[in-house]
Amino acid sequence: MTDVGRIAILRAARRAFALQPYNAVTLRGIAADANVSAALIVKHFGSKESLFDQVADFSEAAEKLLDAADEDLGRHAILTLVNYRRENGLDLLVRVIFSAGSGDERALIREHFRDQVTRAFAARLTGADADLRAELITAQLLGLGATMSLDKTGPTATADPEAIADQYAPGLQALIH
Amino acid sequence: MTDVGRIAILRAARRAFALQPYNAVTLRGIAADANVSAALIVKHFGSKESLFDQVADFSEAAEKLLDAADEDLGRHAILTLVNYRRENGLDLLVRVIFSAGSGDERALIREHFRDQVTRAFAARLTGADADLRAELITAQLLGLGATMSLDKTGPTATADPEAIADQYAPGLQALIH
Repeated sequence: MTDVGRIAILRAARRAFALQPYNAVTLRGIAADANVSAALIVKHFGSKESLFDQVADFSEAAEKLLDAADEDLGRHAILTLVNYRRENGLDLLVRVIFSAGSGDERALIREHFRDQVTRAFAARLTGADADLRAELITAQLLGLGATMSLDKTGPTATADPEAIADQYAPGLQALIH
Repeated sequence: MTDVGRIAILRAARRAFALQPYNAVTLRGIAADANVSAALIVKHFGSKESLFDQVADFSEAAEKLLDAADEDLGRHAILTLVNYRRENGLDLLVRVIFSAGSGDERALIREHFRDQVTRAFAARLTGADADLRAELITAQLLGLGATMSLDKTGPTATADPEAIADQYAPGLQALIH
């Protein structure tokens, strides 16, 4: 399968599982949204359950975002988020915002986000209010991802990643200190 | 009508117009979600069109968020966002994130957000990269709103608003400088 097909499936799956109750999601619906066959999804991602597990898993995102020393973590996280989106057309985190519906498996997406991303940042922090500061770090990253999604030709979506980091990293780094 | 009823209708209307194509939204559906009658919505908000206009309008939000001198604008915007949510159970901005669907009137919600909120911040900025900095200001505010929506018992949703501002305002203020 081409990368284009893989990304189209992942994007459609993220949309489906974040916006609909788990029982309402079908591989057929995801396939139609991604413009591929349901058989192709099964071949490359397995069952609906295993596709959901990929959507609900933020461990790879957390590993990428946190792969820097403390003193450079703010800038690194921003550059990673922006560059990953530019290269893959996917956001590492923002799907959690769309999983805000109540009940069912969408709560699992939010729990994984908290356990795998927010708590991983908290574990890197020293000093007071680590839990609040970690959540504000992920808040700032989610806002960046949401903004790049909202206006794909806007200033942030098109700016030099280093220029975004110049402006946005000092605040993030101040939460790490 | 009680405030509780008004807020339930507004919340249901925001959800409906942000998540569904305009033609798919019905007052009956909003009424069911808000647990009121459609007649009550018509009585207090008028037609579907006028209810949409309220959902798509960010002018009051912008006025509240920007009602401070430049040197205090970051802290003021954060306290306004947090306190408004605590008092009303509604977020001033975050509905724009959920209007990310393509086509139709949802694009209007995003355009109004850009014209009424992001550009109002840009107009307050001096120095280089005002458009990028303004979008990053709204990004940081959207991330805060999204985070308080996602985990309603989490550290940010329950912290003292002044403690949130202590942590989150320096970064926002650095974008204003």
